[in-house]
Amino acid sequence: MAVDRHILWDSLGMDLETHDQLCAVLPQAFGDVFLSQENRPEGMAFWDMVVADVHGIRPQELVDEQAKGRKVFGTFCTYVPDEVVIAGDGIVTGLCGGSQFWVPEGEKYLPADMCPLIKASLGARLGRTCPFFRIVDQIVGETTCDGKKKMYEIMAEDVPMYIMNLPHMKRPQDIAAFADEIALFKANVEEVTGNEITAEKLAESIKIINERRKALARVFETRKNKDVIPISGTDALLMMQIAFFDDPVRCAQMANNLAAELEQRLVDGVSVFPKGTKRILLTGTPLAIPNWKLHHIIETAGAAIVCEENCTGTKFFTNLVDESQTTLEGMYQALAERYMKINCACFTPNKARIDEVLQLVKDYNVDGVINTNLKFCTTFKTEAPALEKVLEEAGIPVLDIETDYTDNDAGQLRTRVEAFVEMLG
Amino acid sequence: MAVDRHILWDSLGMDLETHDQLCAVLPQAFGDVFLSQENRPEGMAFWDMVVADVHGIRPQELVDEQAKGRKVFGTFCTYVPDEVVIAGDGIVTGLCGGSQFWVPEGEKYLPADMCPLIKASLGARLGRTCPFFRIVDQIVGETTCDGKKKMYEIMAEDVPMYIMNLPHMKRPQDIAAFADEIALFKANVEEVTGNEITAEKLAESIKIINERRKALARVFETRKNKDVIPISGTDALLMMQIAFFDDPVRCAQMANNLAAELEQRLVDGVSVFPKGTKRILLTGTPLAIPNWKLHHIIETAGAAIVCEENCTGTKFFTNLVDESQTTLEGMYQALAERYMKINCACFTPNKARIDEVLQLVKDYNVDGVINTNLKFCTTFKTEAPALEKVLEEAGIPVLDIETDYTDNDAGQLRTRVEAFVEMLG
Repeated sequence: MAVDRHILWDSLGMDLETHDQLCAVLPQAFGDVFLSQENRPEGMAFWDMVVADVHGIRPQELVDEQAKGRKVFGTFCTYVPDEVVIAGDGIVTGLCGGSQFWVPEGEKYLPADMCPLIKASLGARLGRTCPFFRIVDQIVGETTCDGKKKMYEIMAEDVPMYIMNLPHMKRPQDIAAFADEIALFKANVEEVTGNEITAEKLAESIKIINERRKALARVFETRKNKDVIPISGTDALLMMQIAFFDDPVRCAQMANNLAAELEQRLVDGVSVFPKGTKRILLTGTPLAIPNWKLHHIIETAGAAIVCEENCTGTKFFTNLVDESQTTLEGMYQALAERYMKINCACFTPNKARIDEVLQLVKDYNVDGVINTNLKFCTTFKTEAPALEKVLEEAGIPVLDIETDYTDNDAGQLRTRVEAFVEMLG
Repeated sequence: MAVDRHILWDSLGMDLETHDQLCAVLPQAFGDVFLSQENRPEGMAFWDMVVADVHGIRPQELVDEQAKGRKVFGTFCTYVPDEVVIAGDGIVTGLCGGSQFWVPEGEKYLPADMCPLIKASLGARLGRTCPFFRIVDQIVGETTCDGKKKMYEIMAEDVPMYIMNLPHMKRPQDIAAFADEIALFKANVEEVTGNEITAEKLAESIKIINERRKALARVFETRKNKDVIPISGTDALLMMQIAFFDDPVRCAQMANNLAAELEQRLVDGVSVFPKGTKRILLTGTPLAIPNWKLHHIIETAGAAIVCEENCTGTKFFTNLVDESQTTLEGMYQALAERYMKINCACFTPNKARIDEVLQLVKDYNVDGVINTNLKFCTTFKTEAPALEKVLEEAGIPVLDIETDYTDNDAGQLRTRVEAFVEMLG
């Protein structure tokens, strides 16, 4: 690490001693998972740099922007519209915790039988071991799953919290209700930032976030090629994970740079996997940074992940917001329509997810699907059999994996994944 | 059993052989829990009769009413407004499963790490071992907790299902949204029953259900007396459990008869517990019939339950619907306002539940609170520490019990409850 960040972390009121333990293990984990890969795209250098100083570079930027008067909003969910925050000249940072490191602290306040992402997130805030959690001026929660919804109540004792009510159905009136919710959120952002959000500003931020979506989608587009796999799933996942934390304009620029390189790789026939490597679509619960466990196991077990159908994958960028609206009300509705197209298992019914997975299986020339669930995620786990039945009927092999953030099951998972990949061949 | 119900059950397409196993054990369980009690109110004879033929008497009535053209709606939640069904001349029956008997069948389709009430409910339907589940013309689900919401998707493959979207916050706009949801449900009831629901009919059914609320509350009122405990918690629970299944007019009549007897007991000083018996308020997850486990343990461990703050207790009858409205729209709003006062843990925040428990502790002269959670109920479990902290700060001893429908933990629970009761003094 080039710069000593301890002064920054200390100024954020962090638990330096405990946090140093995390800093001590991350480089090794990153090296094992990422730097061991061969023939990586040059464009990954940006994300390698970010992750090498993941609690330094971006946190310092955020603190510098705060010093200029800007406000930072922390979020946990792809349904929270970044556009509204950006329109108020605020900054959005994702917060979902992806490491077992934070889980024990979360379990001091939450049931052990709750999903590790939720426990890690609360643990990171209350344990004061993540700078992003210390920097945020306000957290924006939502009524998605039971676990997050109730966790926010505990977190709200420690940090300003704003909650969006997300309907759990997708009828026209539910989309209209979410548009109303976005209007309320706009008022909240105005209050927190002190900046008025005009139609012009919101229109501009809609374009900014759409550009990010297009750039990330452009990278994913190159993963559809059935002969050449220009980027590992592990690298693509890293790009996606950091997209939640980065400035959206820079994110789009870096993703476009990477996409250009990958497009050239398709022309040149440069693949990071041997010809005939089995192509996997991963679906299910999100993979928050630094959760690289399944990707690493799968891609060192003889297969390649070519698509992630989850919040740290296609759900983040699929579908653009209509840019033709000129009034705030029109934009709220356009935003609601786009966000409510995300097929999260917290909705009922959620059959569109099954259709989407089937479509992605075709688009990405997939040989097999791995449906993964974070332990105790009731919603995704309960709809898993219906998804798997449809895939099996369509002749697509499926492997169901439930796991958490520990490495306890890594050996067993490797055996299962290897058997699955062998079966595909 | 006086009447052989096998012809009825067979006509309902039930799995007679498996169901006979349930019928074989219920009388023994009922005898052990209820008939072993001393000095029971005479008014309990009605509920004893109902439960002695619980899969016979009421199911036969429902089938007879269906033969006349009436429709039966099955529900799982105290937020579903019975008034609307009654106004369409429909019949409501609760369906929540309260026995371990149905859990293994439910676990064929649902995650094992899901609350037993949900697993038992699906198991009872798909295993064809409960007549109520066979009789219903339609089931009315709701978007309360993750588990029920996703379970309904599976159940909907087997039976007509209508889902109400319940907001998870309680701002004025959420109450208005629920009023709109009630209006939609009214249209559904009209469609299913073929009967028009007029303002007059809805006003009449609001009165009917209010009368039921008043009658059940009148029974509970007698449990507040600090010197005399005129009815066991176990008996009061049975009345509440059957209230979900019974005709509401008859339910009110029987509850009023019982209340009159209990009021006389207060005058006469007739208590079913020795003077000085410690008074327990039970709060937390619902106790669906025939889940008598905790009541039996607590009341044979030297304590008396004087109040249940849950869906099979005060939540079912507290707060009346405003009867002064004359238009359908006014009534939808009045219904929404009453139902949204129920303090379920699926809402965020749910601080009003804490205030309510504190008030009930005073009203019922409670010595200690037992906060119970069905295993894997994320919402109630997550808010438990906040509730328990406030109670402890108020000097009210609290025991936290997490359990399921099995008897595996009965011995351990008895030991813990006995120690708690002894500690009370």
